[in-house]
Amino acid sequence: MTGSTVSYSLSELRARFGGEVLGDSEVRVSRVSTLENAEADSITFLANELYLRHLKNTRAGAVIIAASARNATQVARIVCANPYAYFARVSALLNPPRETLPGVHESAMVHPEAQVDSRAEIGPFVTIERLARVEAGAAVGAGCFIGESAVIARDARLYPSVSVYHRCTVGARTIVHSGAVIGADGFGIAFDEDQWVKVPQIGAVRIGSDCEIGANTTIDRGAIEDTIIEDGVKLDNQIQIAHNVRIGAHTAIAACTGIAGSAQVGRHCRIGGGVGIAGHVTIADHVEISGHTAITKSIAAPGVFTGVYPFEANREWRRNAAQLRHLAELARRIAALEQDLEELRRTRT
Amino acid sequence: MTGSTVSYSLSELRARFGGEVLGDSEVRVSRVSTLENAEADSITFLANELYLRHLKNTRAGAVIIAASARNATQVARIVCANPYAYFARVSALLNPPRETLPGVHESAMVHPEAQVDSRAEIGPFVTIERLARVEAGAAVGAGCFIGESAVIARDARLYPSVSVYHRCTVGARTIVHSGAVIGADGFGIAFDEDQWVKVPQIGAVRIGSDCEIGANTTIDRGAIEDTIIEDGVKLDNQIQIAHNVRIGAHTAIAACTGIAGSAQVGRHCRIGGGVGIAGHVTIADHVEISGHTAITKSIAAPGVFTGVYPFEANREWRRNAAQLRHLAELARRIAALEQDLEELRRTRT
Amino acid sequence: MTGSTVSYSLSELRARFGGEVLGDSEVRVSRVSTLENAEADSITFLANELYLRHLKNTRAGAVIIAASARNATQVARIVCANPYAYFARVSALLNPPRETLPGVHESAMVHPEAQVDSRAEIGPFVTIERLARVEAGAAVGAGCFIGESAVIARDARLYPSVSVYHRCTVGARTIVHSGAVIGADGFGIAFDEDQWVKVPQIGAVRIGSDCEIGANTTIDRGAIEDTIIEDGVKLDNQIQIAHNVRIGAHTAIAACTGIAGSAQVGRHCRIGGGVGIAGHVTIADHVEISGHTAITKSIAAPGVFTGVYPFEANREWRRNAAQLRHLAELARRIAALEQDLEELRRTRT
Repeated sequence: MTGSTVSYSLSELRARFGGEVLGDSEVRVSRVSTLENAEADSITFLANELYLRHLKNTRAGAVIIAASARNATQVARIVCANPYAYFARVSALLNPPRETLPGVHESAMVHPEAQVDSRAEIGPFVTIERLARVEAGAAVGAGCFIGESAVIARDARLYPSVSVYHRCTVGARTIVHSGAVIGADGFGIAFDEDQWVKVPQIGAVRIGSDCEIGANTTIDRGAIEDTIIEDGVKLDNQIQIAHNVRIGAHTAIAACTGIAGSAQVGRHCRIGGGVGIAGHVTIADHVEISGHTAITKSIAAPGVFTGVYPFEANREWRRNAAQLRHLAELARRIAALEQDLEELRRTRT
Repeated sequence: MTGSTVSYSLSELRARFGGEVLGDSEVRVSRVSTLENAEADSITFLANELYLRHLKNTRAGAVIIAASARNATQVARIVCANPYAYFARVSALLNPPRETLPGVHESAMVHPEAQVDSRAEIGPFVTIERLARVEAGAAVGAGCFIGESAVIARDARLYPSVSVYHRCTVGARTIVHSGAVIGADGFGIAFDEDQWVKVPQIGAVRIGSDCEIGANTTIDRGAIEDTIIEDGVKLDNQIQIAHNVRIGAHTAIAACTGIAGSAQVGRHCRIGGGVGIAGHVTIADHVEISGHTAITKSIAAPGVFTGVYPFEANREWRRNAAQLRHLAELARRIAALEQDLEELRRTRT
Repeated sequence: MTGSTVSYSLSELRARFGGEVLGDSEVRVSRVSTLENAEADSITFLANELYLRHLKNTRAGAVIIAASARNATQVARIVCANPYAYFARVSALLNPPRETLPGVHESAMVHPEAQVDSRAEIGPFVTIERLARVEAGAAVGAGCFIGESAVIARDARLYPSVSVYHRCTVGARTIVHSGAVIGADGFGIAFDEDQWVKVPQIGAVRIGSDCEIGANTTIDRGAIEDTIIEDGVKLDNQIQIAHNVRIGAHTAIAACTGIAGSAQVGRHCRIGGGVGIAGHVTIADHVEISGHTAITKSIAAPGVFTGVYPFEANREWRRNAAQLRHLAELARRIAALEQDLEELRRTRT
């Protein structure tokens, strides 16, 4: 969509990121595009052979491609093991993130006992409370709130309107999108004498390095100890992480998923959107969970797990779903039939 | 609840909005009410014959009603084809939206290179970045953030605390409620060497005219090209629209629904609450999806589609749901029974 | 995690909160801890006998325990009927909420016709519109928006970035977490001539006393009359309450649940996370709903209700779920088998 005016030849890209160049290695590219809308100055990629038909017609100057498709086009190309990751790196080179502009906006309210590094950027209408710390290279967008004793580590980036409650930590290079709330009280209530008594939530939230937290995602502070998001975790938008959850390093979770209190999710998991994970369960490393699945008990070993009701036309769904309430009875009737048939057979011989 | 002091006679309403008046056409109404709580100065409506019993007892001065119910009351009434839509127009007449008050609040931070029309209203603590444009009649509520080169078109209204990231567009007359985030990065990550590499999200979000975006709804910017919300789309609260989704014109989506990356939803669809739509699927025009359904593959033709697990008392659910894990086996046993029975029959004759 | 420097002996706690002390009643505690991480100055609790093994090894100075476990440890202990609620009260004593600091921050924009009690605290960048009222002891965090004629009652606490639209009410001592939106327009639209007409939402939201509203939760204003949250209701994060819903007193709802328009939820209900409740249904008092369940019709009596698709390994799920689309046919085949077998039997004798 937008392009930098800088350009790179394929041989320059190879020098930075590796891979093998086929075709004219002096082709220069200045922007990334989709296969369909690429032009002569675009580099694009093919990560999924489903899109081979688009490759045929692309006008791209260059394409990043896997070894298996090396001969699927005559366009100048970079052949590599992981075209999508290679593309990510090329795109980051051509579309560098906005630089941090050191300085505190004149409208920001920084408590005199807060520590804001001179190389940090603090936007308009930001509130930074007592003893909070914002480290070098961090950028805090307009209207963010950084509570007492909270820490925004080096090179972290908070987009506008993020709230970080007291004593919570956002790790180095972690990105937090608008509307995310880090460290609100966990849902700790005790029922007593016909009403709920609030349980003070005195833990905090610790988010590791190199994470990304999506827009309007909420991560609650721990009840007594901390809620922990380990390094490299990627959370999409509108995710809810309850108190005392731990998410293992390099796990990725798609939007609208909710994880209930004290659940432990392993490392390198991939969790779909709209998933629910019950409180206190443990999910092993390398588990994959399909979107819209409810995980009601622990998963002890890697694998792909699913629990989705298949949709169909409403009329058919009505007829079929009605039987769900009779499933135990149907199973019993099948067993009875088997027995009766066996009986018939026996008495016959 | 609140009423304007302006009043209209039924004949005046007929002159504006059409319909047929039965009973005293000079009855004057100054506010809208429910059937149950209407008074002599109220106009109310009956859109669903389920509420006929409330009609019997209403104290309303006038009622808006369908032809099929024209004789169900003696109250002065307007008979029309679509009582609910007629009511909507009467209510808008009696409850006009707050007017835009042109001017930039003294506390707002407007970049000198931003363009804010003199007929736009900019509230307190608003940030408007470089090259952003706010057109005539638009109102930007307290604490909103309008990123670089973003556009808020004529007569659009942003309630407080909306974030619009760089280069995103909000169309004419579109309403955006508090906490909505337009244009945060899509969830684009590539897995490589045991960790995730961020894929820059360089597309934007384009929202058409006459849309409404609910509170805390998030619409992600496109990975390479744009995410598109066509004209007249109505999105309820806490909806998640991922990168490169397209929502067709005049589609309405209820709260808490999540639509994954690159899904294409048709025009005039009606999608319930809590629905999940998988990435890359295509939904035809005029499709209706029941609440809480997961759409895991494309839908090629209009119709109503459903996939909801029917709830029941927990004890029954336990007994029935346990059989779900044996369903393939139950089906196999039924087939075996049919074969055995057939066998028995054959050998018998 | 943090501790106050104040300490209490068990006999002092007994004097305040009741219970029976076993062991050394002069043991002093200054902080609450988990069983696993407690130290000599910690008080902890055992509410669930699943954690008895942690009790064996605890280094806590004191523990709060039920009568059934009174002899399960030699640690100094308080025996009471409801250890978790007792713990909540002790923790609140040791971790009192931050005090309200009366005064209006110099950056806040308070309309001259708004009424802010001199004992209220108004944070930086807060907007308070005409005729709004903030009562004594209430605290309004940084960047909140309080619309025209809205009321924030005595001792209520709004964390940063809460939006309260015009005419909505937050009751006494109610806590509202960051990003919550109170009173956005309900999703009222009428379809007419191929497009949607907005129905003005002229009701408001009334939230009772002693409620808690989680981060990024949204509660829509009523279409004509008000949306009502009764006293003592506890709402977790990212909950969506649609227009004209009523939630009965002391009901608790876990995160990510959505309740559609005009639904009526009883008193003392417990609703899990990720639940969907359809519009216009009525839920009796004392109903419990399991997480991730869709409630599509009314529930007339107390009980536990569930509708969750059990997850399994994807390969098994595929085989079993495929049969769901044949369930009505499987039921028919079972009935046919029963009839055929009966026939066989009859003709045999």
